[in-house]
Formats: sequence, structure tokens, C-alpha cells
Amino acid sequence: MVVVMQERASEEQIEKVVAHLVGLKMDVHRSTGVSRTVLGAVGDDRHLDPRLLEMLDGVSEVMQVTEPYKLASRAFKPEGTVVSLGEVRIGGDEVIVMAGPCSAETEEQVNAAAAAVKKAGAKILRGGAFKPRSSPYSFQGLGEDGLRMLRAAANEHDLKLVSEVMDVSQIGLIETYCDMFQVGARNMQNYTLLKELGRQRKPVLLKRGIAATIEEWLLSAEYILAGGNGGVVLCERGIRTFENYTRNTLDISAIPVVKKLSHLPIVVDPSHGTGRRDKVAPMARAAVAAGADGLIIEVHCDPDRALSDGAQSMFPSQFDRLMAELRIIAPAIGRTICLEPVMRRGWSQGER
Amino acid sequence: MVVVMQERASEEQIEKVVAHLVGLKMDVHRSTGVSRTVLGAVGDDRHLDPRLLEMLDGVSEVMQVTEPYKLASRAFKPEGTVVSLGEVRIGGDEVIVMAGPCSAETEEQVNAAAAAVKKAGAKILRGGAFKPRSSPYSFQGLGEDGLRMLRAAANEHDLKLVSEVMDVSQIGLIETYCDMFQVGARNMQNYTLLKELGRQRKPVLLKRGIAATIEEWLLSAEYILAGGNGGVVLCERGIRTFENYTRNTLDISAIPVVKKLSHLPIVVDPSHGTGRRDKVAPMARAAVAAGADGLIIEVHCDPDRALSDGAQSMFPSQFDRLMAELRIIAPAIGRTICLEPVMRRGWSQGER
Amino acid sequence: MVVVMQERASEEQIEKVVAHLVGLKMDVHRSTGVSRTVLGAVGDDRHLDPRLLEMLDGVSEVMQVTEPYKLASRAFKPEGTVVSLGEVRIGGDEVIVMAGPCSAETEEQVNAAAAAVKKAGAKILRGGAFKPRSSPYSFQGLGEDGLRMLRAAANEHDLKLVSEVMDVSQIGLIETYCDMFQVGARNMQNYTLLKELGRQRKPVLLKRGIAATIEEWLLSAEYILAGGNGGVVLCERGIRTFENYTRNTLDISAIPVVKKLSHLPIVVDPSHGTGRRDKVAPMARAAVAAGADGLIIEVHCDPDRALSDGAQSMFPSQFDRLMAELRIIAPAIGRTICLEPVMRRGWSQGER
Amino acid sequence: MVVVMQERASEEQIEKVVAHLVGLKMDVHRSTGVSRTVLGAVGDDRHLDPRLLEMLDGVSEVMQVTEPYKLASRAFKPEGTVVSLGEVRIGGDEVIVMAGPCSAETEEQVNAAAAAVKKAGAKILRGGAFKPRSSPYSFQGLGEDGLRMLRAAANEHDLKLVSEVMDVSQIGLIETYCDMFQVGARNMQNYTLLKELGRQRKPVLLKRGIAATIEEWLLSAEYILAGGNGGVVLCERGIRTFENYTRNTLDISAIPVVKKLSHLPIVVDPSHGTGRRDKVAPMARAAVAAGADGLIIEVHCDPDRALSDGAQSMFPSQFDRLMAELRIIAPAIGRTICLEPVMRRGWSQGER
Repeated sequence: MVVVMQERASEEQIEKVVAHLVGLKMDVHRSTGVSRTVLGAVGDDRHLDPRLLEMLDGVSEVMQVTEPYKLASRAFKPEGTVVSLGEVRIGGDEVIVMAGPCSAETEEQVNAAAAAVKKAGAKILRGGAFKPRSSPYSFQGLGEDGLRMLRAAANEHDLKLVSEVMDVSQIGLIETYCDMFQVGARNMQNYTLLKELGRQRKPVLLKRGIAATIEEWLLSAEYILAGGNGGVVLCERGIRTFENYTRNTLDISAIPVVKKLSHLPIVVDPSHGTGRRDKVAPMARAAVAAGADGLIIEVHCDPDRALSDGAQSMFPSQFDRLMAELRIIAPAIGRTICLEPVMRRGWSQGER
Repeated sequence: MVVVMQERASEEQIEKVVAHLVGLKMDVHRSTGVSRTVLGAVGDDRHLDPRLLEMLDGVSEVMQVTEPYKLASRAFKPEGTVVSLGEVRIGGDEVIVMAGPCSAETEEQVNAAAAAVKKAGAKILRGGAFKPRSSPYSFQGLGEDGLRMLRAAANEHDLKLVSEVMDVSQIGLIETYCDMFQVGARNMQNYTLLKELGRQRKPVLLKRGIAATIEEWLLSAEYILAGGNGGVVLCERGIRTFENYTRNTLDISAIPVVKKLSHLPIVVDPSHGTGRRDKVAPMARAAVAAGADGLIIEVHCDPDRALSDGAQSMFPSQFDRLMAELRIIAPAIGRTICLEPVMRRGWSQGER
Repeated sequence: MVVVMQERASEEQIEKVVAHLVGLKMDVHRSTGVSRTVLGAVGDDRHLDPRLLEMLDGVSEVMQVTEPYKLASRAFKPEGTVVSLGEVRIGGDEVIVMAGPCSAETEEQVNAAAAAVKKAGAKILRGGAFKPRSSPYSFQGLGEDGLRMLRAAANEHDLKLVSEVMDVSQIGLIETYCDMFQVGARNMQNYTLLKELGRQRKPVLLKRGIAATIEEWLLSAEYILAGGNGGVVLCERGIRTFENYTRNTLDISAIPVVKKLSHLPIVVDPSHGTGRRDKVAPMARAAVAAGADGLIIEVHCDPDRALSDGAQSMFPSQFDRLMAELRIIAPAIGRTICLEPVMRRGWSQGER
Repeated sequence: MVVVMQERASEEQIEKVVAHLVGLKMDVHRSTGVSRTVLGAVGDDRHLDPRLLEMLDGVSEVMQVTEPYKLASRAFKPEGTVVSLGEVRIGGDEVIVMAGPCSAETEEQVNAAAAAVKKAGAKILRGGAFKPRSSPYSFQGLGEDGLRMLRAAANEHDLKLVSEVMDVSQIGLIETYCDMFQVGARNMQNYTLLKELGRQRKPVLLKRGIAATIEEWLLSAEYILAGGNGGVVLCERGIRTFENYTRNTLDISAIPVVKKLSHLPIVVDPSHGTGRRDKVAPMARAAVAAGADGLIIEVHCDPDRALSDGAQSMFPSQFDRLMAELRIIAPAIGRTICLEPVMRRGWSQGER
């Protein structure tokens, strides 16, 4: 904690601030300059509210020195974390692609999407059974029936499964059917939910809130890590800005920033990040080029009839083409993307 | 729903869109202009995703005509709603002030704050027992002990009580002790919670999310109203912008906007809206001048030692002075603010 | 300047940073704590780019201590500045109202507006002759003809005159006709223009850019002050956020913030700040209640036929009513608003 | 223009709106639905302010159908524009890289940077002689001396030259020395400047303002195009959001959006877009992967001693490495990036 005094601060005011810091069990170092005094306070300031010090007489500014998160920081754990769902490893050399429909609707729909994304090289099936919708009048998901369909399709096509959990009461159900919990952007600061997920064994895909700073996002990860669950995968999915042509502004620069601040893997959701199917491929390519550890993409075999978010779901043929483009880009940053299994099945011949 | 076709749209493309709209049970009116065709589709489009239509060939833009909320709209209920907590009426001529500490900490602290805010003219005690904190290492509230302290202080000083509910599992407890549920900004889109509050009898103070549009905020109110609970009070508490000098940017213009779009009462929280004690009074005055139905303000008798948000808590003497200023402003817009009880107790003599 | 080293910074890295700071003619104070070293550097750091230091090995964070502006700061000049246009004083006890049409269109229109705003209590006529318009196809103003009409109307009704200057080449013309230059939001960082206005004698109304921080705004004021022109009046007119119901989000909290950081007077433009006529009165009341030194409001006798911004122009009768409301509010914060002259002319009888 | 009437609009109100539209020379088509009436107005509505219609009684919402720009739109010119600086073609198959120092400082510095960027494959030298700086106390550029140094270095290394113009008075000077004018973000709405550049023959690199919507940016391009200068290259350089870890948020999604709306080429500035050297390479790769027609990057041989923006300038070795990565990425989207000359000089051998 660094406390900068005002230019006209009196000796009495300075001493009062020093006493206050000592009362907080901090070691204080005082630097007296030509026009100002600066106090460096060393100790554990993770619990302090810097604004409180700012209210003391004579104080100009207070700056916190330690990041407020610990377990999530790269200083705490310098090497990158790999989160494993069985043999699928997020955060390693391979860029992992999760894909599937926005919501589970019917067995056929889920199965067709799973087949398509597997063929193109995805490793994890995504799909919602509990849907957080802005309007109470929108389709809210099939619940356990949806989970059952998703699990069956994942098994059939040898895919892992990730699905959204909206509330503590749904954890048991999601845990039964899925390999990873997904926490949506609207729940990034649902602390009751985060605490409970910290007690689980399966990993968590934690989406960034639409107005969350990267620091707040890492603090939400800290809630899960502090509970004992080390399997956190961060997911950038767009932030809200004044620009409205796209549904959100996908913050691609969050990728290198998170890589510097934290050891946790980061994936990108270009479907929610743009909200428009024709913008998904360029942004997916950009994410991989910027160093993302994975992608989560909505694919639907008949998006015009999707019960939710059809406008941002890719057709399987578009997804195929995107995967081919990504295979060219990944080596530029020393990554691979699902090379082997596809090769074995002779996929690459038909691509172009 | 209005569908604007591209300038070069073919007759075939136009007919395909018309067929699509008819398939959705809409009446379609076609306007053919010099350069473009515009399709007006009449019917219930509350469930439709306009982006889906935008993906059809030849479509330039799709605009939704009906607001997506219904029960919350002023078109549905032209006269303003008054939400009653016993004899305290929010949304009537009187501007209602809720005040108290950020968190309940000790019996003495809660009681001292309650005494101070009652004396100055507040009608409702505010105070948190469950605290949503960005960091898992921050004080998380006293839970039921805190609620017990708050209820005792409210009873002692003849105040109503509002306190935050963070999760469905806490509803029963809050209901036992409080007169109104508070939903925090981070939970504005916790739909599981909103649905359950829709089944309660006591009113709900619904804070706006830091990046929520006014439309999304009204849709969250709609979740509660649709469940059968008509007692929703909206609370503006600041939105996130690029300006960082203040913690948030208090959107005062949301007051007249909400008044036009909805019949629900709206109150303002200048404490969280600014995050700094010395900005609370100007923003509270601004809110009343702009037409707010009430205020919710943090007051603490020893804010420098508060366990949370002390920097934004007013001293009782500052709060007294603010209430006196508000009594001058309220009549400018035909409102009153706690005139009578204070008069009876001879408060006004000592004010200045 | 405070430099926080990383937890694992080596002694060699620390010494390199110290040497770098000494090379910049700074006195360096070193605080060695349990886990980190903090360097306090005292000296003139107004010209330094803190990001450069951040790039040195072992550095975690760099924080600038001095505000980058000097002449505009309240530390430099503790008492508030009063900017005078003859006997009209902006920044004193009286809240000054500037009003008039968005653009000068015809002699009759300008004259009718001037008469109306004078009668209601405005002291300064506003009106544009050079209009910055987003589209090249929109009405761009009447130029010198417009200035002539505005000056004649101001003289006729004993009002001062403020009008916008868009480019250095227009300064002479505006100076001839007006009592104050207006710099629009889009030109807040047109440094060539600001430098030239610093050489003028007449005061400048400096609007805040739609995405300018308060610090950047004060730095733009610094350009004018540094040139020798001390007559700067700041004008908040709304910032751009994700909320689109209003054209901009009027940042009312900027009023108390500017009052703390700077000695310069601040006025508010609720017409551009909201973009909708029915939101102007509530926001004008809010601005005065929050402590604004003045208002600048668009008034048009026939706004539906205005060539620009008619939707945000008030009818004279609405403006009359607003002024009456403001007269009730101003005393709440120890201000007056055009009481005397109106009284003398028997204005108050006809008001309600 | 589509006018949606309120649910309760009376026949008289509807007729008044129809009359108003007819008065504006629009053809009106009326659609009467179950609950509302929708009016489709066909004609040239580029000059109309939709907010004016919204103020009429009974009107619920007004939506503009035509984009407000014309010459910049892809509807007007379906094939992409190629802007030529001699044999260097921006907007063709080749991704064009512009690079060089933020500011010209000395002959040696400019020359060293030019040599380095040429060797790595850049085609255009960038460098500032007139610098728009937030603070009046910062280095403001060398003026004509700087331009002379830049031109000499460009000639020496067979590069084209682009440099910033801040004011109409500098156009002649920039035109003498440079191959392309650069308009900075702060001047994107300096209409006097844009109009004058519309009369020039040399192309213009138009940066997006930090809070400009894509529509406003295209309208600024329209000012130049409408003046007769068809050589406009758009440049995305980051928008301002609540996230402060990066200086700005580089809006990569603007690339596919602009490609859809307009025929003009678009390049990206990852140096200003991030403000930190270590974020430049990931964002440059992302931009090319998303389809940018070019990049503009700051490179300095001794960035720690740069007079401006050193923190965001790359070392030549970093720039070399980036170019090698881009050569892998470009083919993924059917583009090339400076293959031939570099090959001839045996550059590729030494790279890895």
C-alpha cells in the first residue's frame, strides 16, 4: 500500500496516517520529497479498502500494491495450468475446440450436432439444458431431459461434455451428466454458486461477466480455487461497450493479458462474443492467433429453427471450413489443433 | 416486427421472408418503395429473436416494435404503482429515505445508526447480513446474527427493514426478519432467485446491474411480476463507464426514463453509485431533483472502522444536513420528504 | 512517481531501476518490505511516461503521484475562479443560465428565442453559426450571417453571447461577434485550436469530449490556461456509455468531482446530455442540485421546424417552468438564480 | 423511415404523423395491426432527425432504414476499393505493413528504424512530426524537420511514407513530404480538416475515434469521399471501455463489420490499440487472422529512450519475429504478406 499525501499536508496529518497504518499491522516507510510525502506500507493489505485511507485528512491518493487475488496469479504459480477432462487437456500445446448447439432441443438435433462437430475435430460437446434468458417468456431449457440427450450424444461420438449450471440446486444434476461445469457471464459474481463449485471435483469453465474487469474475473476464479477446486478454465465472451453493431465487443486482448497475470487456461466464445454467425469465423481465427487455449462455438444443423441463439450458430459446413483455417494458423504460435484423429479418418482430403 | 429488405433484394427473397413470418403466425403488410421493400409484421413477437430473420438472404435490418416486457410497462398500467411496507408508501408524494450501515457488525453499531437515521427522517433501515464481496478474503457478513440485530434496531426505532438476499436458500431467513428483500446489482440476472421472489408476498428492491440496460432491468422486474409479486421497487446504483474517478457513474437520467417506460417506483443509491462519502450528498440532491421516489444511503457512526464500504458511508451529521437540503428541494417537483414526524419532535430547530 | 517491484525482483534489477530514475533527475527513496521493494521517486514527473518504467525488468507497477495538469488544479489555486462576461459572473453565488436555439436560422427565430429566454431569466444567449455535424449532408450553419443575427438579438435583449468555434480560421469572426468562445465536444482535443484560444482575451466554454476522462478534460483546459487565457468555463454534456435510451449519459457526478480537483467553474448542458426534450428539465434540476455553476439549454419557439436538434429543444413555456423550479432548488445549496431583475420586471406574477 | 405508433394512438394522432411525413416529401404506407399502427415512409431520409418524429403525440418509436452514409457503403460500390501509393496497394491480396517510430527524433533514429522495418518486410514508413499530446507539457514533435528526416529515410530504403496532419494549416507541408495523410483518432470529427482533405489527391488514413461508432467513422470517411478524394483507408486503433489493463480495447470485430458495410480497406494499429509492447504481436496476429488489409506498428531501435510512446514500440527483433508469424497466418484467409523481396534477400533463413 502506498499513501501519497497532499502537497500541503501538515506534519500532524502525516503522523495520524502513519499511526493508522501501524494500527493495521503494517510496516511504514516514509519518503519526504520536495513537495510531498509518500508513505510505503508493507504488510498484508489484501483485506483493506484503500478508499478508507483516502478519506483521512491530508491524503491525496492511495494505491494498492498487491493484486487482490493470490491462488489465481502467475506469481503464485509460474507455470501454466493444464485442466484435464480425461485425456482432453486444456492449456497444453493443443488448442481444444468445444462445440455444439446453444440448447438441447431434441435427440436428433443434439446427435446431429455432436456428429458434425466431432467429425470436424472438436473434442468437447457443449449444449445447454438450463438457459438463463433475459425474458421470462423465452425458452428456458429442457432441464434433465436435455442433459440426458447431451450425455448420450457425447458418449456416442466420444466427446467430453460441458453444460451450464445456474444455481447451487442444479450442481448435483450437472455433475451426474457432465465432465465440466459452465458458469455463465450473468453468474460470474454469484458467490454462493462459486463457493459450492469450489467444493466439487470436476473442472469449471468460468465465463467473464459482460462488464467485469479482468481483476474481478480472476477474483471470481479465486473463489473456486480457494475452495479446493484447481480446475478453472477462463472464458472470454465479449464485454459491453457503446458499439452496438455487434452484440458485445469480444476482448481479444484479454488473452495475452490473462496469460501474463494468471496461470489458468483461457478459451474464447466467439458465438456469444459477436452474436452474428458471419462474424464467428474471423473472431475464432483471431482468438487462436492471439494465443487462446481453446474455443467454444455454437454449431446447429438447422440454426433457423433453433429455439435459442440460432442467429449466432454456425452451419456444420462453416465449422468445417473454420477448423481447416485454424489448422493453418495454430503453428504460427507453436500450437496444434486436432491433427491426428482427423488424419486417421481421412478427413483432410475432402476439405477443400 | 419490421423487416427492412436490402436495396437489391429479389422478389424471391422477399417472398421467402414473407412466408417465414406467416409461418410464425404474423400478419404481414408489405410496403414497396422506390429503392427498398419494408415488411411490417403484426402479431406477438415477444418470443422471437430478430437476429434470426436478419440472417435470411436479402434482409437488411429487423426492428422489434413491442417492448419485450409487458407487466412492467406503463402501457400495461398507466398509473404509477405505490409499494407499501405497512404505512410506508414508496411511489407516492413523499420521497422515502432508507438509510443505515453497509453491514451489520455489532448491536451497538446497528442501534446507533438506526437511532441517527430515524432522527433525521429516514423511514426504512438498511443493512446487510449477507454481503456479496468481489474477494473471497473480504468480510462476508454476520448472517442470521446480523439480521437479528437489524430487526431489533428497526423495532426499537420504529423503522421498516430492508436487507439483501443473495441466494434462494436465504429467502426464508430474510423473509422472517425483513419487510423488503433487496436484490443486489450482481444478482439482477440471477433468474432462479428472481423466479422464487416472484412467489413471495413481501416487496423486492431490485438494483440495476452495473452494465444492464434499462430494458434488461425491466425484464428482470418482469420475472418477479410474472410470478405474482407486484411489489417491485427499482433501484439505480451506478453503471460502469470508462470514467474511474467515481467508482461507478450514477445514471441520474435513468429516473425520468424509467418513469416514462414503467409504472414501478424508482429509488437511487448514491452511496454505491459514487463510492465516496463526499459525493453522496450532491448526488442524493440530484436524484430527488430529477424525480426519484426515494433514496437508499449508507450511514455509519464510525465509518473509519466499518468492516465494509466505510469510505462511502456518511457521518450522521452529514446525513442530517442532507435531509435538510432535500426538504428544500422536494417541493420544487411537488413532493414532500418526511416533514411531519420531525416537526413534532422539534428536530428542525437544531439543524443549522 | 512510485515504482513497485515484482516479488521476485533481483537486487540487480532494483539497482537498474534506481539508476534509471536518477538519470531522470529524480530523488529516489527505497522501501524494502517483506516480499517487495517499493521505490518512491520525487521530482518533476509531469513529462514522464510511466509505461516506459513498467517495461523495465523486475517492475510490477508504476504509479504517477502528481496530477499531470497544474494551472487547472485546485492545489495550484485553492479559491474558485469567477469568469466574467461584463457584469455576468460565472462561478459566483448566482447560477447562470445560457439559453437559445441550437442554430441560428432566421432573424425572427433568433429574436423570438432571445426574447423568451431573457424573460425567463437567462443571462447569456447561445446559438450556433458553425455546426459540427456527423453527416456531410446535414445543415452546417449560416456562418457569419448567423453570427450577425445572434449578436443583434443579444443586444436587443441585453444578453451576452456564446457561440461555437470549430477551427482556428474562425476565431477572428467569432471574437468579433461573441462574448465567449464555445469549444464543442468533438474539438476538446483539437490542440491547435486550444493553443490559439490560449492567446485570446475572451473566455472559453470548453465542453467535455464524449469519451474524455475528467483528467483529460482538465488537461485540455491546461492548454488554454498555459497560453495565458485564464477564462475557462468547463461544460459537462454527457458521455458515451452502453445505455442507448438517452443519446448520452449526463455525468452529474462530474460536478462535485471537478469542484474538488479544479478551481474552474463548471456548467451543464442537459440538452445534448440527453438528446430528448422531456428529459431536459429533470436533468437541469439535478445539475443545479448537485452544485453546477450554470446551465446551457436549447430553447426554440418552434422546435418541430428547427434545422438541427429540434428534438432536444425546449418550448419557451417549458423553459419558464424549469426556471421557476430552479429558483426553489438553488437556495438548498446556498445559491441564487436570477432573482432580482426578474422581480423588478414583475416576472413572478405571471409564472404559474 | 419506419414510424411505430403507440398502442393507444388515436386516429387523429396517426393522421397528423402521416401529414408530417407527406410534408417531408415521403411516400407513406400504413399498416394497421391488432394493437398498433406502423407507418413505412419511403423517400430520402438521410437529412431527417428521427428524434423529431418521436416527439409527436402518439409516436412510440422511429427507425431509420437507410444508412446515413452513401459513398462509403458497400451497397453503393459492391467491389472492394484498392488504395494505391504508387505500386503499394492497400486492399488487395497482400497484407500491407506500415511501421516506424512514433515520432521522428533524429536522423539516425529515423534511419535505423526505416532500415529495420524495410528488412522485415514493411512497405510504408510511419512516423510523426506533429504530435497531438494530451498534455501541453509533452513533446509536440519536430515539425518540418521531422518530415524531412522521414522523407529522406523513406527514400533511402524505398518505402512509402505516412504522417499525421493535425490541422488544415499543415496540409501543404504534409503533402510535400508524404505519400498519405494520417488523421488521428482525436481529429476523426474535425470536419474542417476532413473537408479540406476531400479536396486533396493523396490518400488518407482515417483513424477511428476512441468512442466513435462504426457508423460515425464511416460518416467521417464520407466527408472525404464527398469532397472527391476516393483514397480513404480506415484504421481501427482501439476504443475506450471500462477495462483499464490495456490502454484501449482493440475492437478486432470491427474488421469483419467494416468489410460488410463498406468497400473501403481497413488496417489495424495494435500499438495504440494496446499501449504495451508485449501485447502488440498477439493483437497484430489476431488482426490479420480476422481479415485486416494491413497493420500500422510502432518500431523503435531504442524504445526506452523514445520521446513518445516508447512503451508501445517494438524492438526490431520482435518485429522480425512477428512478420514471420504473419507469413504463416496470412494464407489461412487467402492473403499474402510481403513474400518476394524478403526471399530475394535471404531473410527467411536466419529467422528461426
